[in-house]
Amino acid sequence: MSATKASSGAEGRLSQYSLRRRVNFYETDCAGIVHFSWFFRYLEEAEHAMWRAAGLSIAPAGEVSYPRVSATFDYQAPLRFEDEFDVVVRVAAIGRSSMRYACTITRGTAQVATGTTTIVCVKAHDGGMKAVPFPPDVIGRFEVAASPAEP
Amino acid sequence: MSATKASSGAEGRLSQYSLRRRVNFYETDCAGIVHFSWFFRYLEEAEHAMWRAAGLSIAPAGEVSYPRVSATFDYQAPLRFEDEFDVVVRVAAIGRSSMRYACTITRGTAQVATGTTTIVCVKAHDGGMKAVPFPPDVIGRFEVAASPAEP
Amino acid sequence: MSATKASSGAEGRLSQYSLRRRVNFYETDCAGIVHFSWFFRYLEEAEHAMWRAAGLSIAPAGEVSYPRVSATFDYQAPLRFEDEFDVVVRVAAIGRSSMRYACTITRGTAQVATGTTTIVCVKAHDGGMKAVPFPPDVIGRFEVAASPAEP
Amino acid sequence: MSATKASSGAEGRLSQYSLRRRVNFYETDCAGIVHFSWFFRYLEEAEHAMWRAAGLSIAPAGEVSYPRVSATFDYQAPLRFEDEFDVVVRVAAIGRSSMRYACTITRGTAQVATGTTTIVCVKAHDGGMKAVPFPPDVIGRFEVAASPAEP
Repeated sequence: MSATKASSGAEGRLSQYSLRRRVNFYETDCAGIVHFSWFFRYLEEAEHAMWRAAGLSIAPAGEVSYPRVSATFDYQAPLRFEDEFDVVVRVAAIGRSSMRYACTITRGTAQVATGTTTIVCVKAHDGGMKAVPFPPDVIGRFEVAASPAEP
Repeated sequence: MSATKASSGAEGRLSQYSLRRRVNFYETDCAGIVHFSWFFRYLEEAEHAMWRAAGLSIAPAGEVSYPRVSATFDYQAPLRFEDEFDVVVRVAAIGRSSMRYACTITRGTAQVATGTTTIVCVKAHDGGMKAVPFPPDVIGRFEVAASPAEP
Repeated sequence: MSATKASSGAEGRLSQYSLRRRVNFYETDCAGIVHFSWFFRYLEEAEHAMWRAAGLSIAPAGEVSYPRVSATFDYQAPLRFEDEFDVVVRVAAIGRSSMRYACTITRGTAQVATGTTTIVCVKAHDGGMKAVPFPPDVIGRFEVAASPAEP
Repeated sequence: MSATKASSGAEGRLSQYSLRRRVNFYETDCAGIVHFSWFFRYLEEAEHAMWRAAGLSIAPAGEVSYPRVSATFDYQAPLRFEDEFDVVVRVAAIGRSSMRYACTITRGTAQVATGTTTIVCVKAHDGGMKAVPFPPDVIGRFEVAASPAEP
């Protein structure tokens, strides 16, 4: 079961996406709680759902792909099997070839974790990758979210 | 930590591979034991190590790839965090375009689980896949293992 | 996004559950398709959702737990990133202390995979586990599904 | 295959641990590289191996457990199927009830990723958890590593 909500601003650009999710059995560990590595996947699920809500897919296609260059999470409370929780991902910054997200995970009114991740638009180059500007029809679908602390 | 042993017969063909492995924390679930889905990955680790011991890689390369068409496991005893265990994979059958493995997982003298899996050599065809004969320099590196029940 | 449907028979007993699911990025592998180990987790998600629809939780609680003693999958077609698919789990057999499920995974009209798994009701015993009868208020919530081939 | 090396200082206290590892097939994604969430598990594998080298287990036992309160990774280069790589974890800071690690992942001479994580020693309290001092026989087994930039 899941419930989702996208927030869009001027010209229908997306700045935020909210995903409701339930903890699966295989996401827990022998300490009885969700293994910390799963939170990065929860963030990614919400991010990719936001791209779909924007009419896009983050799947590798054509010349460019979107690897991530950083990821962080701080954990305030555990999640357990069958807990329902909300993953809110916001666009925190948009650059020429990179985009940063901020993420808040809550269970009811309890804050569970906060995270960030940064993706870069790259193209294959000389056996490696080099950063290139986002395609306009991709980056034009997003805008930076108002800070959650602002009214 | 891991220890490995490959068994080879006539002309150095491989028929069996043994991998020693320790349970990682993230492989356990909130019942306190390794989640049953991990045993399929343990089998695959031993299989791929056998391919490397044969001088091959099972990575998609060139025209053919090796998806699996079936996988089974029966579970006799649980594994827990930091348990050391052995994964023995044997070549159970070789066909024109498919190969079947049998697998036994043990912890010391205790049998933990037994499994099987079958891979098929395929080539892209008409938007789908079709089975094709194994490349000779691939399948020529393997032979069916003597049954474990035989002397 | 997900849609679900439970089928119940006499006295509201559940015999079948259907879960709609989308492939997450982290479920794919470098062959470009969902890794075969994930299908076992998809089956488990549908099974646990059926237990919740029955007003139960499969989480370890009290004296008994429900480890699985076997799991199988046959694969007919691949799933790829962002594919939507349906997981139908049916109760195939109910014994005194074990229950077997059959599972079919489809993408639109295409059959993707079929699987089975058997759980056993156990209690801690002498440092190990022994099978015990299901609690009546658990097993009384389920009944064997009509065969999918029957009218 | 794996090779490991622990570094110990005064009184045999451990400050660093190095783990050699190979990329498993199931750790890759459809972009053809290791999914970013796996690096957190690689760090954890090296951390837990260091605890074992110190004669300890990080498994929940007795009254205390060691959840993590933060985790970060920066990614400089991708890892691919069957790549061999080294995970070096160092003790970066030791507090009364928390310990921070720094981690470097390399493939040959190429730097792949750098990460950090912080664990806290907690005890169950009032339905939640509260931080408590590390048991002396645990924390006495570790010491802060010299900075990698120092001679």
